Amino acid sequence: MTQLSADFKRNLSFCPFPGSEKYYQHGVLFPKIRVPFRKVTLCATPNAHGKIRPNQPVFLYDTSGPYTDPKIKTDIDAGLPLLRLPWIKQRRAMSSPSRTQMAYARQGILTAEMEFVAIREGCRPEFVRQEVAAGRAIIPGNIHHPEAEPMIIGRNFLVKINANIGNSSLSSGIWEEVEKMTWAIRWGGDTVMDLSTGPNIHDTREWIIRNSPVPIGTVPIYQALEKISGRVEALTWDIFRDTIIEQAEQGVDYMTIHAGLLRKHIPLALKRQTGIVSRGGSILAKWCRIHQKENFLYTHFEELCEIFKRYDVAFSLGDGLRPGSIADSNDAAQFAELATLGILTKIAWQHDVQTIIEGPGHVPMNKIKENMDRQLKGCHGAPFYTLGPLTTDIAPGYDHITSAIGAAMIGWYGTAMLCYVTPKEHLGLPDKNDVKQGILAYKIAAHAADIAKGHPIAQQWDKAMSKARAEFRWDDQFKLGLDPQTARAYHDQTLPNQKEKQSHYCSMCGPNFCAMKISQEVKGTRGKR
Amino acid sequence: MTQLSADFKRNLSFCPFPGSEKYYQHGVLFPKIRVPFRKVTLCATPNAHGKIRPNQPVFLYDTSGPYTDPKIKTDIDAGLPLLRLPWIKQRRAMSSPSRTQMAYARQGILTAEMEFVAIREGCRPEFVRQEVAAGRAIIPGNIHHPEAEPMIIGRNFLVKINANIGNSSLSSGIWEEVEKMTWAIRWGGDTVMDLSTGPNIHDTREWIIRNSPVPIGTVPIYQALEKISGRVEALTWDIFRDTIIEQAEQGVDYMTIHAGLLRKHIPLALKRQTGIVSRGGSILAKWCRIHQKENFLYTHFEELCEIFKRYDVAFSLGDGLRPGSIADSNDAAQFAELATLGILTKIAWQHDVQTIIEGPGHVPMNKIKENMDRQLKGCHGAPFYTLGPLTTDIAPGYDHITSAIGAAMIGWYGTAMLCYVTPKEHLGLPDKNDVKQGILAYKIAAHAADIAKGHPIAQQWDKAMSKARAEFRWDDQFKLGLDPQTARAYHDQTLPNQKEKQSHYCSMCGPNFCAMKISQEVKGTRGKR
Repeated sequence: MTQLSADFKRNLSFCPFPGSEKYYQHGVLFPKIRVPFRKVTLCATPNAHGKIRPNQPVFLYDTSGPYTDPKIKTDIDAGLPLLRLPWIKQRRAMSSPSRTQMAYARQGILTAEMEFVAIREGCRPEFVRQEVAAGRAIIPGNIHHPEAEPMIIGRNFLVKINANIGNSSLSSGIWEEVEKMTWAIRWGGDTVMDLSTGPNIHDTREWIIRNSPVPIGTVPIYQALEKISGRVEALTWDIFRDTIIEQAEQGVDYMTIHAGLLRKHIPLALKRQTGIVSRGGSILAKWCRIHQKENFLYTHFEELCEIFKRYDVAFSLGDGLRPGSIADSNDAAQFAELATLGILTKIAWQHDVQTIIEGPGHVPMNKIKENMDRQLKGCHGAPFYTLGPLTTDIAPGYDHITSAIGAAMIGWYGTAMLCYVTPKEHLGLPDKNDVKQGILAYKIAAHAADIAKGHPIAQQWDKAMSKARAEFRWDDQFKLGLDPQTARAYHDQTLPNQKEKQSHYCSMCGPNFCAMKISQEVKGTRGKR
Repeated sequence: MTQLSADFKRNLSFCPFPGSEKYYQHGVLFPKIRVPFRKVTLCATPNAHGKIRPNQPVFLYDTSGPYTDPKIKTDIDAGLPLLRLPWIKQRRAMSSPSRTQMAYARQGILTAEMEFVAIREGCRPEFVRQEVAAGRAIIPGNIHHPEAEPMIIGRNFLVKINANIGNSSLSSGIWEEVEKMTWAIRWGGDTVMDLSTGPNIHDTREWIIRNSPVPIGTVPIYQALEKISGRVEALTWDIFRDTIIEQAEQGVDYMTIHAGLLRKHIPLALKRQTGIVSRGGSILAKWCRIHQKENFLYTHFEELCEIFKRYDVAFSLGDGLRPGSIADSNDAAQFAELATLGILTKIAWQHDVQTIIEGPGHVPMNKIKENMDRQLKGCHGAPFYTLGPLTTDIAPGYDHITSAIGAAMIGWYGTAMLCYVTPKEHLGLPDKNDVKQGILAYKIAAHAADIAKGHPIAQQWDKAMSKARAEFRWDDQFKLGLDPQTARAYHDQTLPNQKEKQSHYCSMCGPNFCAMKISQEVKGTRGKR
């Protein structure tokens, strides 16, 4: 393994983005915490009289972890430093009966994690505590995943994105998946779900968690089913319980649990154009039918809560009946399950277990807001976590775009985290480049949502970019971009010389037709008269 | 030129999409008209008992012109067949004082163009006539561009998209631009704007128009400025008038005229973060400042109407003060110009000149609807034609996505045509692949808008795709996709064998975890019990 790992490490580009460096801000309540940012240093603005005015650096939210800090020597074999271990150990000494962030928040305790995310988000720690206590936000962080940098998911914070990785029985190995994880967080993934269904599920997950600075989610029913060679009829609560304990022990931060899919919902779903399109949902529906029994995740839900609260694993209550096509959107099956998820949310909260709610899927633009409204009301304000939604079915190969449209809108309406969709959706397992394309489309959607919500931190970024654009600071435009290398490469395809980085035009319009250049001349004309 | 042309022709892929063929529907009022569709033939649905049920073919709106009809021999040197010539000739014999589609519509005359678009859109010709008469829709079609297949732009029809092509002084020649035009319509461009600013503007446009089956738009001030070597101060009404007559004689179908930018608006725009970002807008603002006179396009607007009505050229009233950044969106400068465009619309309509209104630009999601509402009210229901809008500034290299989000939303709200943005926006002149990426993002946006508006023709397409998906008809999924080759290539990266095109799974989930497969098994389970 060590040898493979050495090969693997050579393939990774663990360096900061061009023009960016890692910057840490210390805590006040917890002076030892160091919260990472991507600091982008900008060029000065020259004016007509040869004088220059400096531009303040921009500090961007940074998900990339220690990998982009040249001062930290990372080693995939050893795993990441155990950032949260002292905080977790210290709390063990406390007499608190429950170890979840929600339990602490409800007792009025401000944790190091809460100050950490407050600094990341630019808000007060007390506000974080209140949101977590009310269930409107979660800080996913299994006590067995001390490598993770705390982050928060809630609609009164920056909109987050999740990247799904994981192999299937037909492709991809452990190393490819670890590489996809580090690649996903480099481009802005806030959490990563390991959806592996192939061989080596346990080992793949172990490598991912030990090297992940972001929370890791899973869908445990996949591994439970692998344990019984895919025979749905052989699934039992005991197998499932053992699987979630195994995963919780490893450090999984949140788990998708399809406990809201009830027997009575199944006939509603079978009438549809595309039936059940959630893997977990279809497995549980089949199990219910074969055994003529209620979904065992629903009947054992309180036992799940007991396990989850011991590790501070968060529920991601799965939407096993999400629509798989425009024709099936917002139908009776979907909303019946959503109502059940609202009931389960209250039970989870009674156990101080942090909870988010999964959402669709395929939804036309005119039906997106209803999803958000029903979720907020029916699930008592728990954070919404949606897959897209895709706003049309006709563009296989481009579903990162069909869904970025829906994701941006539902993010604006109040969804807390957007699960990405890659260009390979409906066609095959995403590779490394697909992961990047999916992440970038979703960073755009999440940021567009933050802008629409009027988030001041988000607005600063756009303002810095637009100022650089108006002042023809090309290097700064590249540096501030979501993907600096690609922006520079596109520019340089037609104007590659360094001199042209100072030009007051690009090849799109050329020197005589640059509106921004002429606009500056208009200002000059006013000055003369 | 002929030799270059031969090289060029070898580079083009003038063939139908896989699984598709050209289909023509004849007119009733005008039995000789033949309206093109892309007919997609689908496989039958097999069932468990070995019986099959046929699936009806799907007829898709087809912008690609004669190039995808193997029965028509196209020749770039000769230009396309003169489809509309008999209709135009016949109308010359009529005593009508005006030759625009709006004039005919207002007189109660149903033209061949109206029936043609009615068949394309699946509505009654009389409805088309009413919409054109009311100014709510336009059928752009210069009487000197008889090669064009009629199409309609209006919010009660399918949402259209425009692709900008054209060289600048720094890159691209005539052949590249003709190739971009045929490429753009192949992927779904409904109109093409030739925004050339470099050398050979006249010749480039001539080759494009003679070979274009879609309406061609221009921004004539670019050529007017080239005639005086870029010296804005030397611009005159006479030079401009001669330029639009030259272009109208060639057959340009619609022209962007920045007549709504008034002297008094300029100070409002100069206060902005990004000033004036429209090329035409910045040129006219500079002209107004230098000469201390009102915009000559505004003062000579009635003369423009007189010229436009002779050829049935449509106005695309330009938004010279559109916002160039999130910070500048929906500001006083933008809305002051929009109000002026409303006044000009009424004047154009008095002359029976068809008119659309250009819109922004850069607008956050929460401010998009206000743009649509103000345009509809202020411009009396004239069709809106927007560039994007981009919903964030931070993603150079990905502005086809930042803007597809805004475009889809404003299309849903009522915008009639969406002007595409390519990945190269803000960075350089788009190449052929950028044109394709821009078109596909905008086909998605326009179709998502049609779906959200509940358009039955749009819904049929999604239903056919979802049915193919649920029935694992892989070849049909590829055929029905916006980009069949890419969808197939993505699928085949992991499962290349023909046998796997019959598989009830793909590599994303593998055989044991395919939800759709399990969902079918659940149906079977019900049958047994």
